[in-house]
Parts: sequence; structure tokens; C-alpha cells
Amino acid sequence: MTPSIARRLVAEFLGTAFLVATVVGSGVMAETLAGGNVAVALLGNTLATGAILVVLIAMLGPISGAHFNPAVSLVFLIGGELRRGAFLGYVLAQVGGGILGTFLAHAMFDLPLLQISQHVRHGPAQFLSEVVATFGLLATIVGCRRSRPEIIPTAVALYVVAGYWFTASTCFANPAVAIARSLSDTFAGIRPADVPWFIIAELAGALAAAGLFRWLLADKPQAAAAVSDAPSWPGRTEPASKPR
Amino acid sequence: MTPSIARRLVAEFLGTAFLVATVVGSGVMAETLAGGNVAVALLGNTLATGAILVVLIAMLGPISGAHFNPAVSLVFLIGGELRRGAFLGYVLAQVGGGILGTFLAHAMFDLPLLQISQHVRHGPAQFLSEVVATFGLLATIVGCRRSRPEIIPTAVALYVVAGYWFTASTCFANPAVAIARSLSDTFAGIRPADVPWFIIAELAGALAAAGLFRWLLADKPQAAAAVSDAPSWPGRTEPASKPR
Amino acid sequence: MTPSIARRLVAEFLGTAFLVATVVGSGVMAETLAGGNVAVALLGNTLATGAILVVLIAMLGPISGAHFNPAVSLVFLIGGELRRGAFLGYVLAQVGGGILGTFLAHAMFDLPLLQISQHVRHGPAQFLSEVVATFGLLATIVGCRRSRPEIIPTAVALYVVAGYWFTASTCFANPAVAIARSLSDTFAGIRPADVPWFIIAELAGALAAAGLFRWLLADKPQAAAAVSDAPSWPGRTEPASKPR
Amino acid sequence: MTPSIARRLVAEFLGTAFLVATVVGSGVMAETLAGGNVAVALLGNTLATGAILVVLIAMLGPISGAHFNPAVSLVFLIGGELRRGAFLGYVLAQVGGGILGTFLAHAMFDLPLLQISQHVRHGPAQFLSEVVATFGLLATIVGCRRSRPEIIPTAVALYVVAGYWFTASTCFANPAVAIARSLSDTFAGIRPADVPWFIIAELAGALAAAGLFRWLLADKPQAAAAVSDAPSWPGRTEPASKPR
Repeated sequence: MTPSIARRLVAEFLGTAFLVATVVGSGVMAETLAGGNVAVALLGNTLATGAILVVLIAMLGPISGAHFNPAVSLVFLIGGELRRGAFLGYVLAQVGGGILGTFLAHAMFDLPLLQISQHVRHGPAQFLSEVVATFGLLATIVGCRRSRPEIIPTAVALYVVAGYWFTASTCFANPAVAIARSLSDTFAGIRPADVPWFIIAELAGALAAAGLFRWLLADKPQAAAAVSDAPSWPGRTEPASKPR
Repeated sequence: MTPSIARRLVAEFLGTAFLVATVVGSGVMAETLAGGNVAVALLGNTLATGAILVVLIAMLGPISGAHFNPAVSLVFLIGGELRRGAFLGYVLAQVGGGILGTFLAHAMFDLPLLQISQHVRHGPAQFLSEVVATFGLLATIVGCRRSRPEIIPTAVALYVVAGYWFTASTCFANPAVAIARSLSDTFAGIRPADVPWFIIAELAGALAAAGLFRWLLADKPQAAAAVSDAPSWPGRTEPASKPR
Repeated sequence: MTPSIARRLVAEFLGTAFLVATVVGSGVMAETLAGGNVAVALLGNTLATGAILVVLIAMLGPISGAHFNPAVSLVFLIGGELRRGAFLGYVLAQVGGGILGTFLAHAMFDLPLLQISQHVRHGPAQFLSEVVATFGLLATIVGCRRSRPEIIPTAVALYVVAGYWFTASTCFANPAVAIARSLSDTFAGIRPADVPWFIIAELAGALAAAGLFRWLLADKPQAAAAVSDAPSWPGRTEPASKPR
Repeated sequence: MTPSIARRLVAEFLGTAFLVATVVGSGVMAETLAGGNVAVALLGNTLATGAILVVLIAMLGPISGAHFNPAVSLVFLIGGELRRGAFLGYVLAQVGGGILGTFLAHAMFDLPLLQISQHVRHGPAQFLSEVVATFGLLATIVGCRRSRPEIIPTAVALYVVAGYWFTASTCFANPAVAIARSLSDTFAGIRPADVPWFIIAELAGALAAAGLFRWLLADKPQAAAAVSDAPSWPGRTEPASKPR
């Protein structure tokens, strides 16, 4: 049985809040303690982010699909697994939750709640990084989902762990998180002016991965059949046959 | 078949002792070796704590439910899965085991057995951190338990790994551990005067999470039915139908 | 149903590209941030490489077997599970994907696309290291495959994590990756003149492991029977009965 | 079908060799690169050791039970799951494999093959540490084995990861490994004069854990019945009914 839309939105809100609180909070903790060694700080930031992602996806996946990310929700909208109204609700919950997460991290570390980041993340290399980062994230989700859905919490978390290091942008890969991080002038921040380019890059990467994997997996049992056996988690939030 | 209460209490005692010995001992080791880089020390402390949690929950979960934490036992008491007498025994075993764990860590590192921590962990930001930390811990346990009980050892461990970095209090999230750590004037210590506030914050966070997830999961098959199929581990320590 | 050869080659190409982009990219990130502490840099490089391997093998294993490595494909060719034509295609896709991965990492970090490494990795100790490294990698794949195929993504990733530290050559263990890394004058690079020796060592180690495990596992149900029940993943890319 | 004794001994030899090569080799790599920060070196050493343990136990468990440790084999001998002749063979294979592993690490890092460690690990705190370390290791194996045998490779690895940090002796917990490490005057070494005390402590800890868990698990279905359903891995190397 699909949980009610109210519960699903609360789950998206709560999950994105915890995700951003972890990204921002662990960035503050790590930078404060690392004595200027940024690689050590990034290790702490990476460990915390990867760890919480496993937890949040396992915990909230059965309720909302655990998207926590408008780029992910968009791919499910296009794939017919999320209705338009739910999509809008998801995006609002994700952005709202992300912003609350930033505030929460600031409050826990006794910092001013309202901040504007001055961390410049700009230029073609950063743009390419976000395209690649989000391409890989959606490839992970779409690629693992049909064959090994139970590995998704781990796979998504480990993908982000790798992305923190192999992309020059440290793998935001998430428009809601990018917006939320623009409100924190700390380790994890991003200058508001750079956010729109990040979002464009992220959506482009997400759509490219969804398209490629539609072809790559086309030899497998066709969608209609697959859906009926597929575990309802994560992401299967509505019956595909529901009238739209 | 539920193990006898004696075995369950020994399991809680043993598990909490190993948990605290790891938290305190790895803190000593890490601080001693880290040459003043506190982030490096926290990495070692985090790795050891997360690792032992997976082990202890997998190893002792089938015997006692592997609470090792009065806040967790309280939620199971309220949920009707732990009887009042057992609850009292659990709490005593957890506090006693935790204190033994502190002594054991001191003995292994050739430090004075009896110490009083002078590590100040005080103020509203610390209080909020502990509320959030324990909210998330109970959300992890209650949220994962119905859908994916086999992921609990990993999820709890990873939650604490994240919590060491994203909360300003380094995620004690456990009244018994807080008491035990007040007896160690090392990396992991906490000043005794700060312990009561930590405990209040922890209980508040735990109860809030239990309440929220009761609503979030209410669409799922109702409690009575769920209980009968539910795996008896972790936390299912007594038949719900037992007279109280 | 086995995916078409085109899809399988795209999967090998994509996977090797992501693998090399991660190895090279995370090496650049880690060295840049580590302030001269090479062990800290290697920690970041290790974490990213291990994490992406789990993801790529879980994601692309069901399509191509997720070899990403000519030494692995060679063992499957010899074992009769990969046809000669497919083997040649696999190797070309792996080498091509690896080179693209190097370029992608350079582009993401705003470095010159075309580089030639000057990183000397030479001598008998390096040669022995690569023999041992690739022996262990194939032992992992062949040894885990019959009894616990679902653990392969994790086991391969963890093997490489260990290999980064316990071999003096940091465990290339992959001819396609060695070629690709010769085109990057960064942390992960290898001087082109050293590549042929690495490849010889890798193939020798791979064949030795395959031979030893053929004997070690010979008590188990014989190959023909095992193949019919065996999960088709990873590596089972063609029916063994197909005419060659 | 139980593999032949020759294969089982080769598996124990090979596994212990890889284990010690990893412990010693990653210690050399880590200390060389860490620029004097011992905690950073220990992080690398820990990561490599934990990773290879998962791999080796998953890979060789189905052949020999993956003991790699005379203290583990002793507990299985006492429990009637390993015959006396096999026990002697196991111990010899473990000690021989361990020594080969030390030589292999030295060769890979271009160090003198034959060395004698001068690393002092001495005194009551070290002795207590080894008792606790090996108690916990056997508790992990015996405790997880009946309820969740599939988690053993991960649980053992994570236990050792924690043990590297929470015991003052860095958790040797293995007589064969202690002997092998006495032949390496590097990060992981131990002075030969200290080895006998380590071995005594390890055997004491192992036997204590085996005794305690025999009682703790006694409420569970009795041994005879459990054995018949129990997965034959790891450690179940001979039918319990075989005449001794």
C-alpha cells in the first residue's frame, strides 16, 4: 500500500533536512578540527555524508522512495512513476527541508542562522563536473534499481563518497541541496550566483543518464512486466496504471 | 524462543561495556597518535565506534535486542515490547556495563582507573545537538525496523558515524554512555555537571522520533498484524501479548 | 537473456571510463588538498576508488559482467565464458573507456587534456607487486563467484582498497587502467615505459590465480552443473554451450 | 561436500599469507607516507587490514572455514568441529603462511627479507589488551555464527578495525600473525621476546569467550539440531558425527 501523500512529503522533507544538516554540519566540524589540512576535512565530510545517505534511504525509502533530490524526482516523473502533483510537492518538500537542514546545522554549531555563501564554484570545469556527477548518480539509481534494488542505499551513498573526490565540484548533484548550501558561508557553501548553473548542469546530467540507461536496459524484460514484479522500493511511489 | 532474562542482561552489560571501551579506548589511542590534529583523531574514533557497533548489534541482537542504551529501551517499554521489570534491569546493566567499559579502556591504556572528566560540553547548541542526535538514532531504529530489520546493525553504526561529525556534541545519544564517559578525563569524556542536560535532551529526542514515526508508518499494516510476522530481532524481546 | 553485444561493449566502455576518471580525478583532488601528506592523499584516493567500484560493478554487472579489465576478460575467455570476438571487443572498449576517463578527469579539474606521465614505477619490487596484486584480484573474483556471487562488488572493491596499501605499486592490477594512467602526469600516473612490464606482471598474476583456484574449487560440484544453476552475474555473459 | 584436507590447508596457508602481507605491507606503506603522523599511518593500516579480511573470509571460507588463526582453530577443535589431525595441519599452515606473508611484504617493498622486530609490546596493559582483543574476536565469530553466518566476513573485519584502535596492543588476536610479525622490523612488528605473552593472552581470551557464549546461546536450539541445519560455512569443516 502506498503511504499517503502527506506522509511521503514529510519523509522527503525530513530526509533532505537531515542530509543537508549532515553535509553542512560535518563540513563545519571537519574544517574546524582539521588544522588547515583540507583533505583531512574532506575525509570527515565524506564519511559523514556517505554514512547518513545509507541510513536515510533505508529509513525513508519505503515511505517516499527517498529521492531527497529534484533531479531524481524529475526522472521518475518522466518515467511515469511520479504524478505531476506529487512531483511539485516533492520538490517543495526537498527545497524546504534542505533549507531547514542548513539552519539546523548552524544552530547546532552556534553559528548565525542566516548566512549567504561566498564560496565561488564557477566556470566550465565546475559545470562539467556537475554534469558528470549527476549523470553518475542517476546511472547508479536507474542501473541498480532493476537488478538489485536492495543495494540502492549503499550504492547511492558510495557513489556520492566517490563523487566528493573525483569531481572538481565535490558532487552536489542535487538542486535542492545546492540551494540549501548557498545559505551557509561555511566549508560546504556555494555562492548563490553559481547555483543556477549547477542546477542546469545537474538536470542535464540526470536526463542524459536516464536516456542512456533506458537503452542499455532495453534488452531486459520490458517495463510493463518488470514493474509488476518490481519491489515497490525505492522510487515506486504510485502504481504506473493510475490515471494521470 | 526468547532467551532468559539473565542472558539478556548479561548481553546488555557485555555489549555496553565493549561499546564504551571502544569509544573511550579509541579516543585515547587516536588523540595520542594524532599529533594535535583533532580531525584525524576523530576519524580514528569514528571508524572504531562505527565498526564495533555493527559487530555488537549483529552479535548480541538475537539475545537481548542489542539496545545498549536506556533511551532505546524506553521507546521499547512505551511501545509495549519490553516489560517494566526488564526495562529496569536493562538500564542497570547498560549503566553498569558502560562504567566497566570505561575502566577497561583505562586499564588497557595503563591510565588511572578512576577519573572524572573535565571536558565541558555545555550550552543550548550542545543541548540541541543531543536532541537532534537521539532523534535521528531512534528514527533510524524505528524507521528501518519494520521494512529492513537486517540492515539495523549497519544503519545504526552508520548513523553514529555521521553523528560524530554533524552534531556539535559528537552524538552521545545514549544516557548510559554519557554517564560512563563522565568517568574518563580523556578525548571522549564529558564533565559530570553536563550529563543531566545531555540525558534530558536524549530522552526528548528519542520520544519525539518515536512519536513521529508512529504516524509516518501508520499506513503500513497495523501494529498487531505486523508484530506477528516481524522478525524477533532486534528489540522484539517479549511477546506483546504477555500479561503486564 | 544476455544483453546485445553493443550494450555490453557500451557498459564496459562506460564503466572503465568512470573507474579511471575516479582514480585519476580523486588523485588530483587528494594531492591538491593534502598539503604534502601523501598518506592522507592516498586515503582519499583509496576511499573514492573503492566506493566507485562497488557502484560500477553493481550497476553494470548485469549488462556486461563488469570486467573493466583485460586481465579479467582473459580469464573468462580461457574459462570458455567469453567468446574470442567478444573478448577483443571488451579489451578495446576497456582501453578506449579508460583513456576517455583520463581525459574526463583532466577536463573536470581544468588540466591539459593530453599529458604523458613521468611517474617512475620500475624494478623487480614493482613487478612482484603487480603479480601479487593481480593474483589477489582474480583470486577474489574466481573464489567468491561460485559460493557468494552477490558479494563480488563489495569484495572486488575491498580487495583494491587493501591493494592500494599493501602492494608497493598501489595495485594497478589492470592493463587498460595502466595504459590510461600513463596519459596523466598526476598523482595516479605511470611512466609509459613502465606500462609493458606492469601488463606482463598483471597477466602472469591473473593466470596463476585462475589456475590455482581451478584446483582449489575442484571438489565443488563440477563446472558444467555449476554453470547451469549459477547466477548469470557477474561475468556469465554467454551460454557456455554456444558454439565457438 | 567437504573439500579435501590438502585444499583446506592450502587455503589456510594462502589466506594467512595474504593477511600478514597486508598487515605488514600496508604498515610499511602507511608509515613511509604519513610524514610522522602515526594516527594517519594507523588509518591506512586499519583500512587495508579490514578490507582484506572481508575478502579473504568470503573467498576462502567455503574451502577451509577461513580461520587463519590458531586461536580460532583451537575453539573449533574443542567444540568438536575440527579433528586433532586437521587442527595440527591448520596451525602449521597458518604459521607457515604468515611467515611467507611477511617475506612477501618485504620483497614487494624492496626490504631485506629476513628481519627481527625490535618493537617492544610488553607489560600488563599489553597483556590485558590481547586478552580483551581475542575475547572480542571469538565472541564475534561464535556470537554471529549461529544467527547470521553470512555477516561473519564483515563482522570479523569490522571487529579488527575497531580493535586496531580500542586496544593498546592494536589487536593482534592471532598467535600465527604474532609469530609472523616478529620477523618484520617495521610498523607492524613485535619483539620476539614479547610473542609468548601475546600468545598466552590470546588463547586465554579465546577460551573465555567460547565459554561465555556457550552459556549465552544455550537457550537457542541445542547444538546437535543446530548443526544439522547450519550452513557449512564458515568453520564447519567436518561432519560432527565423524569418528574421532
